[in-house]
Amino acid sequence: MHSFSELVKRFEKRLNNEAIFSKQPTNLYEPCEYLFSLSAKRVRPALCLMGNELFGDIHDDAWHAANAIELFHNFTLVHDDIMDNAPLRRGNQTIHDKYGLTTGILSGDIICIYAYKELAKVKNSLSDVLSLFNKTAIEVCEGQQLDMDFERRDDVSIDEYINMIALKTSVLLACSLKIGAIIGGASEDDADLLYQFGKNVGIAFQLQDDYLDAFGDTKDVGKQNGGDIKANKKTYLLLKAIEQADKKQLKKIKKLLKAGSDDKVENMLKVYKATEVDTMCKNIMQDYSSKAFENLKAINVADENKKPLKELASYLLNREK
Amino acid sequence: MHSFSELVKRFEKRLNNEAIFSKQPTNLYEPCEYLFSLSAKRVRPALCLMGNELFGDIHDDAWHAANAIELFHNFTLVHDDIMDNAPLRRGNQTIHDKYGLTTGILSGDIICIYAYKELAKVKNSLSDVLSLFNKTAIEVCEGQQLDMDFERRDDVSIDEYINMIALKTSVLLACSLKIGAIIGGASEDDADLLYQFGKNVGIAFQLQDDYLDAFGDTKDVGKQNGGDIKANKKTYLLLKAIEQADKKQLKKIKKLLKAGSDDKVENMLKVYKATEVDTMCKNIMQDYSSKAFENLKAINVADENKKPLKELASYLLNREK
Repeated sequence: MHSFSELVKRFEKRLNNEAIFSKQPTNLYEPCEYLFSLSAKRVRPALCLMGNELFGDIHDDAWHAANAIELFHNFTLVHDDIMDNAPLRRGNQTIHDKYGLTTGILSGDIICIYAYKELAKVKNSLSDVLSLFNKTAIEVCEGQQLDMDFERRDDVSIDEYINMIALKTSVLLACSLKIGAIIGGASEDDADLLYQFGKNVGIAFQLQDDYLDAFGDTKDVGKQNGGDIKANKKTYLLLKAIEQADKKQLKKIKKLLKAGSDDKVENMLKVYKATEVDTMCKNIMQDYSSKAFENLKAINVADENKKPLKELASYLLNREK
Repeated sequence: MHSFSELVKRFEKRLNNEAIFSKQPTNLYEPCEYLFSLSAKRVRPALCLMGNELFGDIHDDAWHAANAIELFHNFTLVHDDIMDNAPLRRGNQTIHDKYGLTTGILSGDIICIYAYKELAKVKNSLSDVLSLFNKTAIEVCEGQQLDMDFERRDDVSIDEYINMIALKTSVLLACSLKIGAIIGGASEDDADLLYQFGKNVGIAFQLQDDYLDAFGDTKDVGKQNGGDIKANKKTYLLLKAIEQADKKQLKKIKKLLKAGSDDKVENMLKVYKATEVDTMCKNIMQDYSSKAFENLKAINVADENKKPLKELASYLLNREK
């Protein structure tokens, strides 16, 4: 069994030795090479490999699927960065900022198609793997659309928010694990449990992200404290605070949303505490986290084999920044 | 055996009765529905069905593949229209013009992924079909990149030009036919011959397009005569004229490329005739056309079965406008 970080290293090493993309036309492939040369966490491909190793030795198919998933994830980043007008990705210029809009669109497209090219190399269970991949890819796009829709809406419910973060980020984590499991010959029940584990970890992680952005220890982290508050981002905390607030508190929230003052973050944090949404956020995060560990426990393989996944989830869900 | 137009009608009918896309989120799927509601030629799905029927009755898989191909083609249109700043498609507003840039990008993405969703429904030879589809999808994107590259280059050779039009348009026609053939259980040789047939017809058709834009009968056609000349588009005629021109003619061409005068088209046509590139264009088009018919002839099925494809190619390659 390999740990998460060992698999990340192995994946990264293979990625550096493989030529994923063609060379010509240069204007199409150079931006792709650029993006893949930037240091990245490679969470999803490592999850695919972990999901595979849970049921046996790592199969060649799992490496292809891991490539496919990382390619797909990068495709979404390229296009999302255009849609979000983001100048930076992985601490470097985004493709559209560096090479222009048309290159951003077309390079994104080709990265998506290369994902399917890698996926087509899967020899066993191709049909199942492809179907799950497609279902997930569709959900990820739907999540991105909902995220953009929510920016312009004032009536987003907590359920809608959790559905959105699940679609936008968690299902791809879950899919990565499950594709590994399918390739590893897992039973349908076990593969589904692993999927639910990934989805629940993903949701818990995202809720924690919301929490830490407001209440986390920001030392040595690239993010500003309260960045979400400054940007009026519709996080769990804000949506729940609006739901929980009494008339006076609601008035204060609305005023703060319009404000750009220096003490905006400080004052919003006070409202979050007064409405107790900080505790609620921790509690719901804990619920998803517990569900995830139950899912993992129920999978029908030796506990020993589950260790790397358990360690990873514990590590991810016990961050303090 | 069905004719091309019968298969277009059958495909269109199924398309209207099927719900290809999900309904929610509306902002994502409404633009997709809009695009598919516009009247379109459906050449590629009909070719897929024809390629299939050449080797037997139309298989369910061929209908799924036909959907996939039409979806993929539409995805490229959505993104190409953004890259080309095109306001109109099929006589109506383009998606990005009607709904905005981000919707154009994301709707394009989801149409591409739905193409793969349809493709995943193929039960037999999925791996072969998927591989060919991916190879072709990559080539189409490469063709689009080359097309954009060529706009900024002054040294595009005829070979490069023909390679570009082959990638941008012909390989998808060829792929449509061959996927139909693969699903129909064709031998590898026959499937390849059908692919070459489609590719050669496609190149001949595109060269004819270049010719007709300059020399065609423009009555009742939506295009202006000499539209390519007015736009300084690097067509076969222009590139070949530059290659063939003597010093004096070359000077004239360069002057005309800078001109916006009323007699620009008229004068460029004179150069085309003086350099005899009109005849050369007709000849090379004829070469590709002949090769296509040879490919079709060599396919190991009864002549009777080839009739619809022969009629279609003759119709396409003997247009006068």
